[in-house]
Amino acid sequence: RRDEVLALADHDEGTAGALMTSRYADLSPETSVGEALRLLGEEHTAETIYRVFLVDADFRLVGAVELRDLIAADRKAKVGALAETDPPRATLSESDVDAARRLLQSRLPAMPVVDDEGTLVGIITADDAQRCLAEATDEDTDRFTAINHEEGDDDYLAVPLLAEIRRRAPWILGLAAAGLMAGYIVHVYEDALNALVILALYMPMVADTGGNVGTQSASLVLRAVATGRVRLGDTLRVVRKEVCIGLALAALLFLFALLKVVLLSNGADVPAALTLTDIALAIGVAISVAVFVSVLIGALLPLAAVAIRVDPAVFAGPALTTIVDVVGLFLYFQITTRMLGVQLVS
Amino acid sequence: RRDEVLALADHDEGTAGALMTSRYADLSPETSVGEALRLLGEEHTAETIYRVFLVDADFRLVGAVELRDLIAADRKAKVGALAETDPPRATLSESDVDAARRLLQSRLPAMPVVDDEGTLVGIITADDAQRCLAEATDEDTDRFTAINHEEGDDDYLAVPLLAEIRRRAPWILGLAAAGLMAGYIVHVYEDALNALVILALYMPMVADTGGNVGTQSASLVLRAVATGRVRLGDTLRVVRKEVCIGLALAALLFLFALLKVVLLSNGADVPAALTLTDIALAIGVAISVAVFVSVLIGALLPLAAVAIRVDPAVFAGPALTTIVDVVGLFLYFQITTRMLGVQLVS
Repeated sequence: RRDEVLALADHDEGTAGALMTSRYADLSPETSVGEALRLLGEEHTAETIYRVFLVDADFRLVGAVELRDLIAADRKAKVGALAETDPPRATLSESDVDAARRLLQSRLPAMPVVDDEGTLVGIITADDAQRCLAEATDEDTDRFTAINHEEGDDDYLAVPLLAEIRRRAPWILGLAAAGLMAGYIVHVYEDALNALVILALYMPMVADTGGNVGTQSASLVLRAVATGRVRLGDTLRVVRKEVCIGLALAALLFLFALLKVVLLSNGADVPAALTLTDIALAIGVAISVAVFVSVLIGALLPLAAVAIRVDPAVFAGPALTTIVDVVGLFLYFQITTRMLGVQLVS
Repeated sequence: RRDEVLALADHDEGTAGALMTSRYADLSPETSVGEALRLLGEEHTAETIYRVFLVDADFRLVGAVELRDLIAADRKAKVGALAETDPPRATLSESDVDAARRLLQSRLPAMPVVDDEGTLVGIITADDAQRCLAEATDEDTDRFTAINHEEGDDDYLAVPLLAEIRRRAPWILGLAAAGLMAGYIVHVYEDALNALVILALYMPMVADTGGNVGTQSASLVLRAVATGRVRLGDTLRVVRKEVCIGLALAALLFLFALLKVVLLSNGADVPAALTLTDIALAIGVAISVAVFVSVLIGALLPLAAVAIRVDPAVFAGPALTTIVDVVGLFLYFQITTRMLGVQLVS
């Protein structure tokens, strides 16, 4: 038992090797079904005997057989004759999440793990695979919601106050620091705001809508990447799709902003040289450009993260919102001030 | 097969009845182990035979036995003698997610589903339970990221453009409409902004930070509710914890805002009657109050949703951010204008 713990401890966190157990049931292909059932009836330490692995004299994996097929078979047949000869397997160093996902998709009770020589070194059970994926999902959700994920912190009421502050405060302060950029953009356009306070009224809409559309794209692309449905080579197809979506959402938001300014801003201060329609058009164009760009940033940042081998989930949550805010506010002020000819006194 | 489909179709979506399959293996407790193994060897339609359910003459569930225990047992013993007599079970009308979570926690291959009389009507397999929970998680993530969840839409590149717009646009427009409230708050304080443009510089920080801390609290409370670790009766404990966290985060953000205004705002326009320190204090107090209130809103909204039987995930994503934005901006302008004595000409 101690040897086993030491052996498993050798594998890097996040690999199939660290997820596997060495408590599995194996048989020689030459064993008869009757003998196999007798041996399995005496096997009490294996985590599962519902899928049994066949190894040759050098412990190389040569097949797998389901207990279900064994009890249905002639007791005198050899287990090798019933076996799947090239069963789905994981390698020691592959990602635990990839291996777990493959196992669960196969609907099998367990998957063998082999080393570089093809030697059977352990198995991953469906139970452990399910736990591994659930933990990975919690970790992603925590990144989406600006929380430092600590394993085992899932009992909300039991987490001590200091640990609670430790998992929440760093992200909040980091994002507030990054948010200074957005404040800086507003600072650059302070004179424009002075001249045209109505521009301040649409700052929340630009920031919120940009964040929302960017998060939508990022979330969908992230899930597609995580499940292996989208790879780096699909970048062009993703861009093509998101350009269409971005244009559609931009058009909708253009109309929305236009109607809002025209219909609901009668009380606002408008300088003598401008009409409400001028302002409505400028704000509509600015918001729709910001929306379009936010959609593309949201779709491309997770792919860029994959390309440089950074966890893409980091660029899909509040970090993305912060980036999109800065870019959105910059575009908003650039476009409205240019279209409305607001003088920027520096 | 057709009868089976019809029978299953009768159960409401989201219940254990709709998740179960009628393809299970059952035995009488009086059957001998040897006979049971022979029968199971001939059973080819059941989705699993690794957990077998024992029923009396009226098909009432009276026990469960693992195939593993059967093959280890004396062939002449009765299966009833090996059985667990009160196995974990689900009822037809209970939530599919609750049943699935219980099954996966038990690490058993399947769980029986019974009707009000205790009659065995089906089983939930671990595979289906895992799929059910993964789907529920995707649904929650989609709410968090402002996407209308459609079952089967998980192949990003395959979703047609119109369906893609349908699952994204409604939330974006709805949130933009809700966001008009935030614009209205700014409108009310337009004169204050006119008098003191520096206030506009901290609007993004108030909105973003409020959204971030609110989302943290909502996400943690939501997960605690979803996993059954926090119930309505724990509201007071949640409030007590979040008040502490809120105070700690508010203190940190107060210091952060104070330092930022004092150190980095030398270029900003300050009216003659005020010093930068006055403004820094006012903005620091306003942001920390907004943060504290946002933490509490984030923690309490999911619990309020549970109390009125609305899906709490709705109040944890962008809908929460929108609410927190409005409240945060209102508090920000209220506090800064009062502390700085800015006249609101109406």
